[in-house]
Amino acid sequence: MAKDSYLVGLIGAGIGPSLTPALHEREADRQGLRYVYRLLDIDALGAPPEAVGDLLRSARDLGFDGLNITHPCKQLVIEHLDGLSPQAEALGAVNTVVLDGGRAVGHNTDVTGFAASFARGLPDAPLERIVQLGAGGAGAAVAHATLTLGAGRITVVDPLPERAAALAGSLNRHFGTGRADSAAPDALAGLLARADGVVHATPTGMAAHPGLPFPAELLHPGLWVAEVVYRPLRTELLRTARALGCATLDGGGMAVFQAVDAFRLFTGREPDSTGMLADFRELAGPVTTPR
Amino acid sequence: MAKDSYLVGLIGAGIGPSLTPALHEREADRQGLRYVYRLLDIDALGAPPEAVGDLLRSARDLGFDGLNITHPCKQLVIEHLDGLSPQAEALGAVNTVVLDGGRAVGHNTDVTGFAASFARGLPDAPLERIVQLGAGGAGAAVAHATLTLGAGRITVVDPLPERAAALAGSLNRHFGTGRADSAAPDALAGLLARADGVVHATPTGMAAHPGLPFPAELLHPGLWVAEVVYRPLRTELLRTARALGCATLDGGGMAVFQAVDAFRLFTGREPDSTGMLADFRELAGPVTTPR
Repeated sequence: MAKDSYLVGLIGAGIGPSLTPALHEREADRQGLRYVYRLLDIDALGAPPEAVGDLLRSARDLGFDGLNITHPCKQLVIEHLDGLSPQAEALGAVNTVVLDGGRAVGHNTDVTGFAASFARGLPDAPLERIVQLGAGGAGAAVAHATLTLGAGRITVVDPLPERAAALAGSLNRHFGTGRADSAAPDALAGLLARADGVVHATPTGMAAHPGLPFPAELLHPGLWVAEVVYRPLRTELLRTARALGCATLDGGGMAVFQAVDAFRLFTGREPDSTGMLADFRELAGPVTTPR
Repeated sequence: MAKDSYLVGLIGAGIGPSLTPALHEREADRQGLRYVYRLLDIDALGAPPEAVGDLLRSARDLGFDGLNITHPCKQLVIEHLDGLSPQAEALGAVNTVVLDGGRAVGHNTDVTGFAASFARGLPDAPLERIVQLGAGGAGAAVAHATLTLGAGRITVVDPLPERAAALAGSLNRHFGTGRADSAAPDALAGLLARADGVVHATPTGMAAHPGLPFPAELLHPGLWVAEVVYRPLRTELLRTARALGCATLDGGGMAVFQAVDAFRLFTGREPDSTGMLADFRELAGPVTTPR
């Protein structure tokens, strides 16, 4: 049954600048839905990450229809849920909770969002051998997405070798032995020389962490480059790769499609993803001109 | 500064049928405001009336801009507030809480709502001697309203003599000695014979409590009759009074103007009260034809 209004929120730390509320509310306006999206910032509330359980229960009691969950609560929220989607269960992380009839069910639209963005932005990219930088939460989500899209083998590289190995092990258990391995950063030169593409899933390139995640000379024109960072949309990595002629995918598509998929889960309606992509470009502001 | 969206709710028991959410949301639509109004029913939540404090704190944390409060929480909420309007303080009851910048300030738009409805519906009614039936929460609010409108003297009648006397004492303390007294129900015949008007503020006449609050023969054409009950809009008291030629005021105006005044407090914008009255008549459904 169609609801006559929607109330959703985002739980996380330092989420003030998030564009997700505006993406949801603008899409709701297009669809003629009454829709309010609230930021529930645990930093602003002075609450620890573990407060996500209390916030979830409060949101359910106060009539919320759903929640997005972000750092540092994506794992912590799981014990408070009544069910998980297969993707959320495989990943062990939830970024979207649907509240319905007293039940709270967790989903992960980071996985589906990156997959949708990749399929749209790099539809013909070869997927036989992928190098992925970063084995944190975003890294786990995008590795699940690329293997779901049919990637032959992913090599996970992270400055913390145990974290890289743990992610590779988890991917092998879920997708089949031999689909993933891990390596140390000093192996990158050889790995990238033989790879079809590289997925970048570390914070390097964000405003607070400028620079390149690896030396520019490791890039080559035969490599596609997919970025998770979306602030700025044109990271130094993407600018350098484009200058070399690499096919590239910026992080904006993942940011938009995670919202597209969450909106669909919250409302049961098909979002206008083209409209949401255009909204995102407008909301993200003018893109820095490459040097 | 204008907000770009509003999230408000109603805390109370058994509030499922309330028309207030629809009244607010329709007015917000007329004004082009993003506005969601949620029912927070303590019965549905399995929470005691004292849970109003926790619900208030949760609502503040989860981004609510304001709350309406109804039975049985109008007094209980006060200890959890940071400030009170003069009317709420005088009455010792709050039906509207504005949440702004971490502060929670209580108001009472039952008082201002009944006053606005009375001034609109019975503008020329003489106010020298008023009999009021009912000394509960609604009775206290409407007695404050009629004395604020300039009533000479109110006699409060209630089956519980101590409750009637307590309200009269409180009114005298607030509005000046001699403005109120109390009487037992067996004095009604004499009181109504000499009164300008009667305000009915008991549940009698509601669907669950059908009938008249006093014998029909005590009514006379010189008496105006103001009703607090609004479900149904045409109570047996009003039908009987109209048949006699009495000027009457139904309870719908109070229900609408408490929402008008709350909407103004929540948004800082002037509501279209004519539009809200029309919405209320539509939402309340067809009025029972008098026999």
